[in-house]
Amino acid sequence: MSDPTVNPWTTLSSAVQYEDRWLRLRLDEVINPKGLRTQYRVIHYKLRAIAILPIDAEGCTWLVGQYRYTLNRFSWEPPGGGGPLDETPAASAARELTEETGLSASHWREVLRLDISNGIADEVGHGFLAWGLQPGTPAPDDNEALTLRRLPFREVVEMTLRGEITEAVSVALVLKVHALVQSGTAPPEVLRALGAGG
Amino acid sequence: MSDPTVNPWTTLSSAVQYEDRWLRLRLDEVINPKGLRTQYRVIHYKLRAIAILPIDAEGCTWLVGQYRYTLNRFSWEPPGGGGPLDETPAASAARELTEETGLSASHWREVLRLDISNGIADEVGHGFLAWGLQPGTPAPDDNEALTLRRLPFREVVEMTLRGEITEAVSVALVLKVHALVQSGTAPPEVLRALGAGG
Repeated sequence: MSDPTVNPWTTLSSAVQYEDRWLRLRLDEVINPKGLRTQYRVIHYKLRAIAILPIDAEGCTWLVGQYRYTLNRFSWEPPGGGGPLDETPAASAARELTEETGLSASHWREVLRLDISNGIADEVGHGFLAWGLQPGTPAPDDNEALTLRRLPFREVVEMTLRGEITEAVSVALVLKVHALVQSGTAPPEVLRALGAGG
Repeated sequence: MSDPTVNPWTTLSSAVQYEDRWLRLRLDEVINPKGLRTQYRVIHYKLRAIAILPIDAEGCTWLVGQYRYTLNRFSWEPPGGGGPLDETPAASAARELTEETGLSASHWREVLRLDISNGIADEVGHGFLAWGLQPGTPAPDDNEALTLRRLPFREVVEMTLRGEITEAVSVALVLKVHALVQSGTAPPEVLRALGAGG
C-alpha cells in the first residue's frame, strides 16, 4: 500500500457555485484515489464553530436555548457562535461568551478541536472551558432570540447522555469535559467547583 | 418572554441556489425573531452521517483511515459513511460497517443522535455500538482508499482525548461510549469484553 498520508487526490480545476458571508461552495474536477475522473463539491466555511462551557464556583454552567431555523425546532446548547477566520478562536470564545451570557472569564482552556462534516465541508469547531467568572450584561446579535439557563454541570452531562442536547460540538464538548473531570485531569479549580477535586 | 418552543421565524419565500446528489442549498427570504426582514441560507443534506463502533470479544475496535479531500489531510475515524434518507439509520450502519471493514454484527445499539452544523445545515448524525462480530471481506466504494486498523477501544479513547481523532461524530461517539462504559450502562457483553464488567 502507498503512504496513506500522501494526498491521493488530484485537483484539475475548481469553480465557485455559490458564495455568501458565511460560506463558499465550489465544485472541483478531480482524479480520485482509484484514478477515476470525477467531481468533488467542497463547502468552505468562513466561520469557525465556537462553543464554551463556563463553570462557576458552585459547579454550575449555562445553556443557551434558541429556535434553530434549519431544524425547525428548539435546541439547548452551551454558549457559542461563529468565529471569523481572522479572529483567534480564543478571542471568538471570549466575545461569544460575553455576548450570549454577559459573563467574562479570567481562565480559559481549549479542550477540543473538531472537523465538522468532513466529507463535504472544511468547517472546524473549537471547544473551551472557562472559569473564574464575572457576571455582566448579555448583548445577543440581531438574529438571536435566546433563552438563558444556569444549572449544575452534572445536569448538563445527564441531559447530554439522555440525548436532550444534540448539537454536535456541544455534545463533544460536554462529554470531553466530563471525561476530563472523571479522570481528574480537568483544571484543579474546576474539579473543586464540581466537588470532584481535593 | 414568549414561548421559546414556538417558531419565531417566518419564511416568505425559498429559492434553490445549488443542488447535487448529496445536498441542496436554498436561500430563504425570512422575518427573523426580532421582526426584521433578512435572508437565511439552509443546506439540506440528502444523506445522514453514520458512525459505528464495533467492539469484539477482546475489547478491540476498528478505525478507518482516509485522506480527507476537504481538509487536505489524513484522518482516522470509526467506520461509517453516508446513509440515504430513504434507508433506516440502522440499515445504513450495517451496510457501512460491512463495506468498510467486512464485519457483520449480531447486536446493535443506537447510542447517539446529533445535529451537525445546525446554524447552517440540517444534517443529522447517528452513532451505533455493534457487537457479536463476524469477519468478512470489505468492499469500499470507488471514492474510498481506506486503511483499516484493529486496536483496543481504550486506545481509541486515549487517541480521542489527545485530539488525534477529530471528526465530530466520531469524537462524540467514542466519548459517549466511554461514558456508558465508565458508568456501567453499556451493554453487559460490551462491558465484559472491555474488562469493565462482572
